[in-house]
Amino acid sequence: MQANPRLPLGDDARTLPAGYYTDRDIYRAEMDRFFRRSWVCAGRQDQVRGRGDYFLREVDEESIIIVRDLEGSVQAFYNVCRHRGTRLCSTPDGTFRSMISCPYHAWTYDLKGRLVGAPHMDGTPRFCKDDYPLYPVGVSTWDGHIFINLDGGRSPLEAQLADLPAKLRPWKMEELRLVERVVYDVKANWKLIIQNYSECLHCPIIHPALQGLSHYLSGVSDAPHPSYLGGPSDLRAGVETLSMDGKRRSDVLSGLPPEDWAKVYYYSILPNLLLSLHPDYMLSHTLWPRSPDRTEVICEWHFHPDAVANPGFDPRGAVEFWDMTNRQDWQITELSQLGLKSRVYTPGPYSDREDLLHYFDRMVSQDEDAASSGRGARE
Amino acid sequence: MQANPRLPLGDDARTLPAGYYTDRDIYRAEMDRFFRRSWVCAGRQDQVRGRGDYFLREVDEESIIIVRDLEGSVQAFYNVCRHRGTRLCSTPDGTFRSMISCPYHAWTYDLKGRLVGAPHMDGTPRFCKDDYPLYPVGVSTWDGHIFINLDGGRSPLEAQLADLPAKLRPWKMEELRLVERVVYDVKANWKLIIQNYSECLHCPIIHPALQGLSHYLSGVSDAPHPSYLGGPSDLRAGVETLSMDGKRRSDVLSGLPPEDWAKVYYYSILPNLLLSLHPDYMLSHTLWPRSPDRTEVICEWHFHPDAVANPGFDPRGAVEFWDMTNRQDWQITELSQLGLKSRVYTPGPYSDREDLLHYFDRMVSQDEDAASSGRGARE
Amino acid sequence: MQANPRLPLGDDARTLPAGYYTDRDIYRAEMDRFFRRSWVCAGRQDQVRGRGDYFLREVDEESIIIVRDLEGSVQAFYNVCRHRGTRLCSTPDGTFRSMISCPYHAWTYDLKGRLVGAPHMDGTPRFCKDDYPLYPVGVSTWDGHIFINLDGGRSPLEAQLADLPAKLRPWKMEELRLVERVVYDVKANWKLIIQNYSECLHCPIIHPALQGLSHYLSGVSDAPHPSYLGGPSDLRAGVETLSMDGKRRSDVLSGLPPEDWAKVYYYSILPNLLLSLHPDYMLSHTLWPRSPDRTEVICEWHFHPDAVANPGFDPRGAVEFWDMTNRQDWQITELSQLGLKSRVYTPGPYSDREDLLHYFDRMVSQDEDAASSGRGARE
Repeated sequence: MQANPRLPLGDDARTLPAGYYTDRDIYRAEMDRFFRRSWVCAGRQDQVRGRGDYFLREVDEESIIIVRDLEGSVQAFYNVCRHRGTRLCSTPDGTFRSMISCPYHAWTYDLKGRLVGAPHMDGTPRFCKDDYPLYPVGVSTWDGHIFINLDGGRSPLEAQLADLPAKLRPWKMEELRLVERVVYDVKANWKLIIQNYSECLHCPIIHPALQGLSHYLSGVSDAPHPSYLGGPSDLRAGVETLSMDGKRRSDVLSGLPPEDWAKVYYYSILPNLLLSLHPDYMLSHTLWPRSPDRTEVICEWHFHPDAVANPGFDPRGAVEFWDMTNRQDWQITELSQLGLKSRVYTPGPYSDREDLLHYFDRMVSQDEDAASSGRGARE
Repeated sequence: MQANPRLPLGDDARTLPAGYYTDRDIYRAEMDRFFRRSWVCAGRQDQVRGRGDYFLREVDEESIIIVRDLEGSVQAFYNVCRHRGTRLCSTPDGTFRSMISCPYHAWTYDLKGRLVGAPHMDGTPRFCKDDYPLYPVGVSTWDGHIFINLDGGRSPLEAQLADLPAKLRPWKMEELRLVERVVYDVKANWKLIIQNYSECLHCPIIHPALQGLSHYLSGVSDAPHPSYLGGPSDLRAGVETLSMDGKRRSDVLSGLPPEDWAKVYYYSILPNLLLSLHPDYMLSHTLWPRSPDRTEVICEWHFHPDAVANPGFDPRGAVEFWDMTNRQDWQITELSQLGLKSRVYTPGPYSDREDLLHYFDRMVSQDEDAASSGRGARE
Repeated sequence: MQANPRLPLGDDARTLPAGYYTDRDIYRAEMDRFFRRSWVCAGRQDQVRGRGDYFLREVDEESIIIVRDLEGSVQAFYNVCRHRGTRLCSTPDGTFRSMISCPYHAWTYDLKGRLVGAPHMDGTPRFCKDDYPLYPVGVSTWDGHIFINLDGGRSPLEAQLADLPAKLRPWKMEELRLVERVVYDVKANWKLIIQNYSECLHCPIIHPALQGLSHYLSGVSDAPHPSYLGGPSDLRAGVETLSMDGKRRSDVLSGLPPEDWAKVYYYSILPNLLLSLHPDYMLSHTLWPRSPDRTEVICEWHFHPDAVANPGFDPRGAVEFWDMTNRQDWQITELSQLGLKSRVYTPGPYSDREDLLHYFDRMVSQDEDAASSGRGARE
């Protein structure tokens, strides 16, 4: 195995100023820009298979209901009653029987968000139920992933994803089924988690098991795109997938061309989805910032239903491998967060193996106008 | 039983903007206006029966000592030594033996707050004990209720209570004795608790037991007054009081005219007393805001001493009934607090069954000058 | 025993305004002035006896590594990697094997703080290891105490200590060894702890055991100095030291003249060292402010190695005595913090037995320019 050469970075390839990780105003601006005005990955269609099925997602400081309506479409609403503002639903997931009814005074909405019942409002002048639908949230889907946009979604999800759907078509992600979920509470800024995910220089030090299965210098990243970053790494000879013993317990996903049978593709899809595509399964992380120095991470393992149906199916090797690797990453990421708070910290120099971090930093640090007009990281 | 008709509300009868429940500046202004510059119900004379008896009350961010002095009057002081500012007393209630002595350097005050001992101050030029009494708090009483005014009380308690003492005279509340106390920590703004108390539209949904004993549309509220709101509800046929089985365990209070034997009167007395007058007992809630989204609630059950003295006296049915009902209310109130924080929340329309909430909102939201000049909710 | 006379204090001898104990801006300014720009006592050379030995100290919001380098000198560095800002070391104490290596990407520093290894930085233009040493912290020592200065130390430790080293020479503190450490979390401003330490008027009330061993009015304080305050107290007749039974379990320290065999010297050495010198042992408190109303206190008992080597050595009487006395002090100090927060609190008058507090208050409250130009508490 040989390391691929890199182009040298410019002199400005330095880590971000500390405020990007500690300052509440910058954090608020990022929440608005990335978590309210862009598409965020909320979960999987798999989670709302039946009509009326729903789950809640806490985005920034909002509680959002994602529900499959009676016609089979996925809808999303703010979890707020139009009467007195009560949170409508507290149970994290479940199934609505055709209606969402407020537990306080029984204002009732159908699964398209229309107000259909409002007791004792006859005496209120000019009251009209049509004026009080649930506040809508934009919904779009891609290969089984549900994206939501709190601002409604002025530009389509497709613009944000660019050529990624074409690139990831072979994995037929929409066919995959959730097998395991682990939720982590990481005491670090959300961007540190993406930065950690975007380089493997730390792998020989932090992840000896991973390094044993996949060399940290292998693979060539795709050219960076304003809304996603990533590329493949090679599995070492004889390694079939990333799991405790490097062996697959199920077949290679059926659409994959042979040249991808010994690679893992890693993509950070801004702002909150980390997608790790293995020959036999998909690992997803979604990031949910809670404060400048705290991020909730939902990690899920998704396999093909044919594999799951196999009597000998055993995902434990893959689950254990990534749970261990995740915890190693969170620990070092939390140490980054702690160190960055120091008043002496100044931006440090990146190596050319940290080029994706430099592109990522430029994407998040450029001014918002430039960002929203679509001018990207390269200019 | 038939519902009483209501006058339709105006177009402006909408819930308050979210800031009234979440904004720290508005909260601070409310604490100053309602909890420092008006009379708040601190407790009952019953709690300081003997000379030297005291209890502490935390009002806004102040600790206040309420004590019966050696002449039998109730006094209230800030719990702050005039020497180095030490908190004088930490035990929530007890009895002082004629003096309050600072645990740090033994500055000693009598129960009228006068400094009577200050060791080793002889070398301090111009030091005079008369200059360092405890900081006084205004005290006034009404039918056994002790009210305090942190600002001293520029206008008398009577002005704040208006015609309420005359109206509630028949219950002879000063005769009643505390039988049970439960303290709740509610994760909601104090005003949401008053609003919840001021309508029963939610009763069929939230309180099935209460609804079984008293119909939610029964009763006609008194005309709203700038400092109190409320009125009676009717007990259903055969129901004697609010308790788990609807039966009284003691006689009707002796002063009550027969027309009140099957009613419960509910009054919210601004800013912090909720008084629920049953045929046989008095339930009181006092509200102690701790932050914009948190309120401590002290709930007490008070019965006539003759009832308590009866060998068969058993208050458990009343205690259990209201403890259950309280918890139902806190849960929905906490959901209101959570929903209101959403950035999409906008004031929603009230029904004409929520008219008292509308009057209450006007009272708390009008500008302070208008409030302090006595112009009320109706103008 | 007779009380020594005091000079009367001026009219301005009053406690500080509440903001000094509660205001975050004043707290930040104090942290900068006293904990970043002056010398603070970090610990003892005893803690880094061997080469490579280190301990961490959290000063204000910084983590500092104090380490003995391979040539035997004590060094101190910010615990921050120059690459991506990672906290280098999390274990509170231990031994480095000649290098400090970052756990993230293995940037490696020698124990003088020089960057000696930086993997994969070849592709970074103009990168030079010499440009990235660890951020240094000033280090100086006095009789076994290690002082650090986050700002590097523009003026020497000696200027800050003035004549104190000469005065305390007889105790030969550098010979003493740590025997016991207790860490306390005190819910009070750091200055309240120093003020409490600087007077014994409270001793008869708060510390009956101490009062039994040493009369609270005994001893004459040294003239106050801008950076330290204190003096001796006398042990009562027959009392040998401060311990549960007033008896020593080891000899008087060898350098002490007989006139000091029945005294305890107490010095508060700004900003964070309280030194209590007994005939047979040294007690030290170091103060670590965490917020305006919270201070971590490290209390240590140090004895002579000859005493420790004695088979019958038993420090428990001294440890238990001061642990008890400490807890009494923290409790009353926390009550001071609680009382001072009241809006009615105003500065109160000091007695002439609280003169050191008045000098201390003037030192911390005067404007920074005056302070840094060396004009002290007396002008």
